[in-house]
Amino acid sequence: MCGIVGYIGLKQAQNVLLEGLEKLEYRGYDSAGVAIYNGDEIGVKKTKGRLADLANHLDQKALVGQLGIGHTRWATHGKPSDENSHPHVDGEEQFAVVHNGIIENYIELKEELIAKGHHFTSETDTEVIAKLLSDLHDGNLISTVKKVVKRLRGAYALGIISNYEPDKLVAVRLASPLVVGIGEGENFIASDIPAILKHTRDVYILEDGEMAVLDQHHVQLMTLEGTPVNRDVLRVTWDMETAEKGGFDHFMLKEIYEQPKAIRDTLAGRIKDGLVDLSQEVGLTAESAKQINKIHFVACGTAYHAGLVGKTVLEQLTRIPVEIDVASEYRYRNPIIDEHTLVVVVSQSGETADTLAALREAKKHGARVLAITNVVGSSVSREADDVIVTWAGPEIAVASTKAYTSQLIAIYLLGMYMAQLLETSVVASIGNLLDELQSLPEKTEEVLGQADKIAEFTKSIVHHEHLFFLGRGMDYAVALEGSLKLKEISYIHSEAYAAGELKHGTLALIEEGIPVISLATQHAVFEKMVSNIQEVKARGAHVLGLASEGDTELLKSVDEVMYIPTIHDLFAPVLAVVPLQLLAYYACVERGYDVDKPRNLAKSVTVE
Amino acid sequence: MCGIVGYIGLKQAQNVLLEGLEKLEYRGYDSAGVAIYNGDEIGVKKTKGRLADLANHLDQKALVGQLGIGHTRWATHGKPSDENSHPHVDGEEQFAVVHNGIIENYIELKEELIAKGHHFTSETDTEVIAKLLSDLHDGNLISTVKKVVKRLRGAYALGIISNYEPDKLVAVRLASPLVVGIGEGENFIASDIPAILKHTRDVYILEDGEMAVLDQHHVQLMTLEGTPVNRDVLRVTWDMETAEKGGFDHFMLKEIYEQPKAIRDTLAGRIKDGLVDLSQEVGLTAESAKQINKIHFVACGTAYHAGLVGKTVLEQLTRIPVEIDVASEYRYRNPIIDEHTLVVVVSQSGETADTLAALREAKKHGARVLAITNVVGSSVSREADDVIVTWAGPEIAVASTKAYTSQLIAIYLLGMYMAQLLETSVVASIGNLLDELQSLPEKTEEVLGQADKIAEFTKSIVHHEHLFFLGRGMDYAVALEGSLKLKEISYIHSEAYAAGELKHGTLALIEEGIPVISLATQHAVFEKMVSNIQEVKARGAHVLGLASEGDTELLKSVDEVMYIPTIHDLFAPVLAVVPLQLLAYYACVERGYDVDKPRNLAKSVTVE
Repeated sequence: MCGIVGYIGLKQAQNVLLEGLEKLEYRGYDSAGVAIYNGDEIGVKKTKGRLADLANHLDQKALVGQLGIGHTRWATHGKPSDENSHPHVDGEEQFAVVHNGIIENYIELKEELIAKGHHFTSETDTEVIAKLLSDLHDGNLISTVKKVVKRLRGAYALGIISNYEPDKLVAVRLASPLVVGIGEGENFIASDIPAILKHTRDVYILEDGEMAVLDQHHVQLMTLEGTPVNRDVLRVTWDMETAEKGGFDHFMLKEIYEQPKAIRDTLAGRIKDGLVDLSQEVGLTAESAKQINKIHFVACGTAYHAGLVGKTVLEQLTRIPVEIDVASEYRYRNPIIDEHTLVVVVSQSGETADTLAALREAKKHGARVLAITNVVGSSVSREADDVIVTWAGPEIAVASTKAYTSQLIAIYLLGMYMAQLLETSVVASIGNLLDELQSLPEKTEEVLGQADKIAEFTKSIVHHEHLFFLGRGMDYAVALEGSLKLKEISYIHSEAYAAGELKHGTLALIEEGIPVISLATQHAVFEKMVSNIQEVKARGAHVLGLASEGDTELLKSVDEVMYIPTIHDLFAPVLAVVPLQLLAYYACVERGYDVDKPRNLAKSVTVE
Repeated sequence: MCGIVGYIGLKQAQNVLLEGLEKLEYRGYDSAGVAIYNGDEIGVKKTKGRLADLANHLDQKALVGQLGIGHTRWATHGKPSDENSHPHVDGEEQFAVVHNGIIENYIELKEELIAKGHHFTSETDTEVIAKLLSDLHDGNLISTVKKVVKRLRGAYALGIISNYEPDKLVAVRLASPLVVGIGEGENFIASDIPAILKHTRDVYILEDGEMAVLDQHHVQLMTLEGTPVNRDVLRVTWDMETAEKGGFDHFMLKEIYEQPKAIRDTLAGRIKDGLVDLSQEVGLTAESAKQINKIHFVACGTAYHAGLVGKTVLEQLTRIPVEIDVASEYRYRNPIIDEHTLVVVVSQSGETADTLAALREAKKHGARVLAITNVVGSSVSREADDVIVTWAGPEIAVASTKAYTSQLIAIYLLGMYMAQLLETSVVASIGNLLDELQSLPEKTEEVLGQADKIAEFTKSIVHHEHLFFLGRGMDYAVALEGSLKLKEISYIHSEAYAAGELKHGTLALIEEGIPVISLATQHAVFEKMVSNIQEVKARGAHVLGLASEGDTELLKSVDEVMYIPTIHDLFAPVLAVVPLQLLAYYACVERGYDVDKPRNLAKSVTVE
């Protein structure tokens, strides 16, 4: 996962590229670089570290020129370093390339090129592309690129420039996102629209197996075989205002507080006449719903945790068996899929590489695929049969919050809608369930009103390097999400456990003073949970309990307690996760780390 | 496996026998009993349950006398019950016998004795010996024993006393261990030295086909044909602890090394004519197997991890969808179960409370329940419809090792047996799969031969408080088990991750020098795994790779590598887990903790 950008026109490329890369930093930020043609040769500047470091270098010594490519990196092959940064060039510096994705067969290509006398300076897979361009150059840039691409196996988006044909910028897409921006007397490429939005709102979205050849005035789209492609121009209507911090210290905190709105927006227009109505977005009919005999949820990271809640919700509402899989596992485990399988993929960005590959695997076997995503027009949304969009707005912080709660809302709506189609017994009480569902925005606000209490509690955990989350049933799913949040930004090694499973081994890690955050919002297993809490209390754990208002029984067993408003068990995850998001946030701030850009991570994982 | 002990002397036999049995409980503990001659007749007390239960009974009503035999049982023929406990006596209670081993021809002997009017009260093979002693009694105990032994086929160690000659204790050995302890004015027999070490350090080790006749002052050794045997007295120089553990420092290590035998024993008799034959233990027919439309694995802790492997194995071999649940979650999540569901419960002890409750829940909803357990006659085995016993023998260390690998073997057998019943496509290659399966004992020995290498690597991790395991597919299931082992005894906070999922958050925890153990034994995802390893290497992790022999490609990406013998992907978990068990063991030893009894944990979790 990396961000790439490219420019050809009359402006100084350096500025366009740096501004574009800034908007793509969410895709990676461990090094950055640009290559710019100065009318004579290609100049390259690249450096380990944040984009700001690169900008400092260029401030001192600018690269002049009106054609260029830029890159912000998230390391896959080779550690973050100056050498491993993009762009990469061939030995004669006649070609420069930026790359997002992975070249799977790079080792064999590298050995072959070394044998031919090429000298490599980095550990990356990308460098083989630059060398191949030189090796296979036939005097024509476009046909050379086609030859090179034929040798590559993997997933990639490429931006390429060459000394030989400095009137061209070439882009290739296979499984990594790429858009072309259409300007006046200038054209652009980028991994994502925000990178070029300052300059144009007219874009082409490249499809897999396509390339684009840009000059100052024209954009040609074609397949890698050379067949011309006609594509409608997409006019971008949304603005970037929402992506700013709006008074909050960090994007993450802003996004946590946006959750009542995100939930409201995701519900909006989908409840009519006392029933869920997804008929505009989900093509299922009563007839086709009855043909479904199993449901697979497939997702990664936080979206996977939403799917865990989804398993319970869909099973209880529809009584169809539900399986849940991590996307990177699903693809390779030869899952049992047929035309009676509904596969639900969940991805905030809609570009998550493993999720997209799982979607394709499912479709190949005849499944109906329903996507829950936050990004209209994303790869996942384009390839799924049905799409439920979560109207959470752009999520900038790497640690996902409002996307998660919005995904839960989409799942509740899906479950109820399917229950209606299937006429399961739950339909009798659907009015009641909808009342509870619609109370969530307000109740989420109530939970946010207790943020000070969480900030206070956080002080007691920030000096610990180990911490556990416990829960049963849907509380366990939420515990996993709370633990992931804490890990990814505070770097505390936390781990979530199904409370009943703890005594089968991990209880050995519980010692005097270790913080244990115990979720007890599920009324059906409340007493069992209290027993489990007593097990860890007996070993000296410092316990924060999370329960529903009125369940004061818990107070007897824990050191501190926090309450969420009373709600139906099925919907408790939406409220229960909020204090855990805040806990992670405050822990990160207290420990002095970068909230929005945790180390080693990127927002949207477009490599496997 | 059972333990026997015998005493003749001036002390009260009861105490000597009980203390001796306590030291033999590692050989079995599902029931216990003693027979003591009180100067007039033989009194017998025997009871189902732990030795402590027997001791309680004897506390309340002692058996007085200075000649006796005792037994602690591990059920093979006949469930654990008062009746099936040893010692066994003849109809007139003139003879009492304790037995360790198996009498192969007991059914024909039993029929013959019944025809002669003998009345049997147990389901054991042992009882025929007591009846035969009475039947063949010729007025001389020694010659009677010889006659009896001539009729027996199998493996056994026997201890025998009789009212007719109460100045003698007779012992026989054929293929089951037996030692004679030489005291002053008293003599002993036992299955193992620790049982008598409190009283004497001078022993004879009986050889196969030998018998010993003990009185208060003398021990005569002879062959079963009556030829006197001269044997040097062995002076035991090691201490009690070492003795019980068979020369190993800890039960866990002993059990790790017993795995080749446990696997062999679990396979034994279950492969016939090139096919798996479970017809004696699994009542499924081709007809009833075809009625199964889903399989649920339900278990806790290590057995749950075996179930994770089971999900893949059963799905791939039978193409029936398989779900896997932690037992404490399954019970409360209102799972979708009906008469077409096969529920497979896995429990070493067969007494795990949550697993038992899940079994009952499943039966209530009409499911067929198949149990995989190490304890014949356990609650789980009694309540299940079908039982596959893992012949791992008693497991004493809290951290389970040989039970896990034996559970995997049971799962492979079940998967192949069901594939045969269902005639799935895999049947065409079943011969090949069986060859691979049967190569596991030997290949496990090969892995154990590399223990030194693991011990060496362990030194580089013992000072870390955080550690990660990575794997894909079945390697991920094994990674979870490896991580649990390490946690429960070394108290290092380790965590296992599906390798493709790491970058969705937890990668933030990877920093310079952190140990990452990466499993790459699954050929189908080898390249993907190498990419994931490079992600953590790029963040400075110290990586131990585990791969199949010949996959030297891995060496380029990791700091250290260990190889397992080449094996079909499906069976790799059996070999891959062994180095991880050893790693946990050595880490615990290096850190100075109690290997066999980790803090906070118990062997068999009989509470929820």
